Amino acid sequence: MTNSAELDKYHAEREALIAEDRALRRDHTRHAPSDAEARADQVIRNIRAEEAATIWKAEYPDILHPFPGMEFLNGRSIIMKTKLFKILHKMPKGALLHSHLDATVNAAHLLKFALEHPALHVKVPTTLTTASLKSILPVFQALPKEEYSSLTSLSDSPDQWVPLTSARNNFPQEFGGPEGFDNWVISSMTINPNEAYGTHNTITKIWEKFTSTFVVSTGLIRFAPIFRPYIKEFFLTSVDDGISYVEPRVNFLYKGMYGADGKHTVTHRDVLKMFDEVCNEVKEQMKAEGREHAFIGARIIYSTIRFMTPEELVWYTEDCIALKKEFPHLIAGFDLVGDENELKPLMYYLDVLLKFKERQKEEGVDIPFIFHAGETLGDGTEADKNLYDAILLGTKRIGHGFSLVKHPKLMEICREREIAIEVCPISNEILRLTSSMPMHPLPIVLNHGVPVALCSDDPSVFGNMGLTFDFFQVFVSSEVTGLIQLGELARDSLKYSTLDEETKKLAIEEWEKRWAGFVEEVAGLGA
Amino acid sequence: MTNSAELDKYHAEREALIAEDRALRRDHTRHAPSDAEARADQVIRNIRAEEAATIWKAEYPDILHPFPGMEFLNGRSIIMKTKLFKILHKMPKGALLHSHLDATVNAAHLLKFALEHPALHVKVPTTLTTASLKSILPVFQALPKEEYSSLTSLSDSPDQWVPLTSARNNFPQEFGGPEGFDNWVISSMTINPNEAYGTHNTITKIWEKFTSTFVVSTGLIRFAPIFRPYIKEFFLTSVDDGISYVEPRVNFLYKGMYGADGKHTVTHRDVLKMFDEVCNEVKEQMKAEGREHAFIGARIIYSTIRFMTPEELVWYTEDCIALKKEFPHLIAGFDLVGDENELKPLMYYLDVLLKFKERQKEEGVDIPFIFHAGETLGDGTEADKNLYDAILLGTKRIGHGFSLVKHPKLMEICREREIAIEVCPISNEILRLTSSMPMHPLPIVLNHGVPVALCSDDPSVFGNMGLTFDFFQVFVSSEVTGLIQLGELARDSLKYSTLDEETKKLAIEEWEKRWAGFVEEVAGLGA
Repeated sequence: MTNSAELDKYHAEREALIAEDRALRRDHTRHAPSDAEARADQVIRNIRAEEAATIWKAEYPDILHPFPGMEFLNGRSIIMKTKLFKILHKMPKGALLHSHLDATVNAAHLLKFALEHPALHVKVPTTLTTASLKSILPVFQALPKEEYSSLTSLSDSPDQWVPLTSARNNFPQEFGGPEGFDNWVISSMTINPNEAYGTHNTITKIWEKFTSTFVVSTGLIRFAPIFRPYIKEFFLTSVDDGISYVEPRVNFLYKGMYGADGKHTVTHRDVLKMFDEVCNEVKEQMKAEGREHAFIGARIIYSTIRFMTPEELVWYTEDCIALKKEFPHLIAGFDLVGDENELKPLMYYLDVLLKFKERQKEEGVDIPFIFHAGETLGDGTEADKNLYDAILLGTKRIGHGFSLVKHPKLMEICREREIAIEVCPISNEILRLTSSMPMHPLPIVLNHGVPVALCSDDPSVFGNMGLTFDFFQVFVSSEVTGLIQLGELARDSLKYSTLDEETKKLAIEEWEKRWAGFVEEVAGLGA
Repeated sequence: MTNSAELDKYHAEREALIAEDRALRRDHTRHAPSDAEARADQVIRNIRAEEAATIWKAEYPDILHPFPGMEFLNGRSIIMKTKLFKILHKMPKGALLHSHLDATVNAAHLLKFALEHPALHVKVPTTLTTASLKSILPVFQALPKEEYSSLTSLSDSPDQWVPLTSARNNFPQEFGGPEGFDNWVISSMTINPNEAYGTHNTITKIWEKFTSTFVVSTGLIRFAPIFRPYIKEFFLTSVDDGISYVEPRVNFLYKGMYGADGKHTVTHRDVLKMFDEVCNEVKEQMKAEGREHAFIGARIIYSTIRFMTPEELVWYTEDCIALKKEFPHLIAGFDLVGDENELKPLMYYLDVLLKFKERQKEEGVDIPFIFHAGETLGDGTEADKNLYDAILLGTKRIGHGFSLVKHPKLMEICREREIAIEVCPISNEILRLTSSMPMHPLPIVLNHGVPVALCSDDPSVFGNMGLTFDFFQVFVSSEVTGLIQLGELARDSLKYSTLDEETKKLAIEEWEKRWAGFVEEVAGLGA
């Protein structure tokens, strides 16, 4: 047939073309993998291939169509059975750069915290019935002692506060008793597969459900005696998953929080003080446990919601500046959050945002924008165009940037100016921007050389606690991505954090050490 | 607040950035729209916006979550109610460059053709029951007169041929009688919403169903007395939808076809002769109707299926050369078809394909490759890598190229070498590469300046007859895409066809005339 010289030429051209096509990827531009990395990469690729052919091809009674990278809420139980998951759990993940603090602690855990506090009360807008239970949301609030209620049951007291523990203990048997209460509360703070893939299977509908989970949980979290253990739990579970630094969005929309006395007197300043204290506590704890660098710390991206008027936003920008001046080490940036498809675009606030930059200069502070932008399927919609404004306003990173791949010039700018994209794979899938991980545009972003940090977004709502699940979904959905690329994602999460240069250097050095250990361990599995 | 000079500067920068980001799009690089085009564009955008807010927000008893660009099989009935659909139906579409001939004529129509022929028989592998009816597929075949069967009913004759009309007339009442027979046959040749979005909602499963539809229909189509009216129907319905030229893939896997005598004696050569004759008939008919240029003609992309051995493929490449020599005006190119995720990659045939090019030189013919490639969600899989080989082998266009967007270098090559992508929006969605049109990567392809022709792929299986449905889905899913872009897609479908330069020039000139008329008509709607 064809002569071998011609075939050789073809193969050489092919190899060159593939290399050129992938030349912008982080795993191609960095130095060559170490010998251990190359071995570990092969080991983990083999395990992936083996599990794709076995565990993902098996039949499961309640899971219709298993495949690697499948819809997370259906595939979660299979994921947790894999060897790969156990391996990735041990991987040092670097930083978690995109998470909403109000959705970072397991809902069952949050409820457990809440049940310890007699000040906490619950109410429902109308009488509960078996039929209405699924659609009625509990409202939580701490009350001052003098307003404690003596009611004992939710079911006969619509729109009246009932002590949380009484409401739980006396939850009617036909609703499942106390356990039914727990299920009801937890399901009001989480998204289940039937909602994501059935009843709420559009972006508009799932966002309604998603938003409602915050309405419920906020009543528990905005109570100082819970807030402390809540953030501690967030930090510790992050550490447990190999995350050494977190940079959560904290929603400052509400101008205060409830104190132990049930009064609405806890200010934003108090919130930052608590945050700082818990941060230090966890650092101390790590030190005591002989793993000082397992937790580098936490910084806050000051956030409010993009539904207010520009005039109202001014208060928040001033509040943010004041907090930055008092807690310069804690305020990492500024963002506007909420459903971009439905709420206000950045352009709506242009005047205030430009003024905010001027005011920062006047006050001698620097609060980078770290904007959500392009979390949408829109093409040329306001949500999609937020990408232009985020970049023009000088955003340090982009939250989601799901629609960035449609914009050749913006991808080029992000690559050149090193604007990292906070990609939230599981969030994007549950919020119906993509139906599975293989459908996700992440490979496009990576192959265009745009820096990426993987993030969990709202793990308590989605069930993707830590970062292992998100790394898992990414890894099983691409033959191109191997261990080296996962390492680059983790390293970049630290590189594109807002840590000061010295701390960042330390954090990356410590990460490199842990990475080397992890790589050795994985390589060893192949022996 | 911010001074107005600063705001003006921002707005100017923003406008420049958006223009730069879109600079590669066809609707930006072409000459400025005419006055009428600009008006028509505004009119049709207004209609789109109005219908997005009305008809797509209404409630429908059987349609859970309507939205523009929604899953086609659920949204089809809403689409057909829109003013936009009626307008786009009138649009001159140019060429249909990607369709599989075996799936281009409405299944009910095909069955009607079949019922006219006493030679046609049907059998089923096992006894039909109410429960098995949905999963058992009919097998059709023409028999020679001496083998005509005297059986009267399918239900008592498993695995035996029954005359088609008898089988239909005597189809048991519990299966719905003759009407039940029609439904059963038609549903075996089409994909329904429950299959696409429920029982077969993964790429692997839907391909199983998809492939099975061809197993059924082939028994009807590969019968010369049906083949003629079949292709005539394809040409005429295409013309009716504003398509003036078609370039179907014709599957030559089977080495022959059945003749009117029920014997398997119709050769590939005969098939081409029939094709040619019907082509000329339709041209004559158009001339008689005073619309000579409504149908420029049809050419064939010789195809076989990518599951055979390289040795077996050699026969087809030689067959293709022989046909090209006898019918140079009919053979437009060569392709390998079938599920790229499951079947053989181009690399598997490399030797034969290179040799095929040599043989063409020896024989003095030119048969461009027009390969399917990248019809996959894979990232770095063999199916995804087919894109490298298609391009290295010099493909003229790329069928689907769904995963092209992951490849920066390949997008650049396609843009520079003008390798057009045959994008099949509805096919991609039903075959579960994307869950809805807003999720489809088409905007990425367009914004990177890669030439595109919209195509229907397998309209009889998907229900997207003509090209109006595909243009509709694309248009309602993007705010960037307007009438001008739709026009560019249509013009490019002619430009990147395999028509010889002279015919192409004529075809484009005729298209331009019709386009101008269409534009005037749409602009007039706004008056």
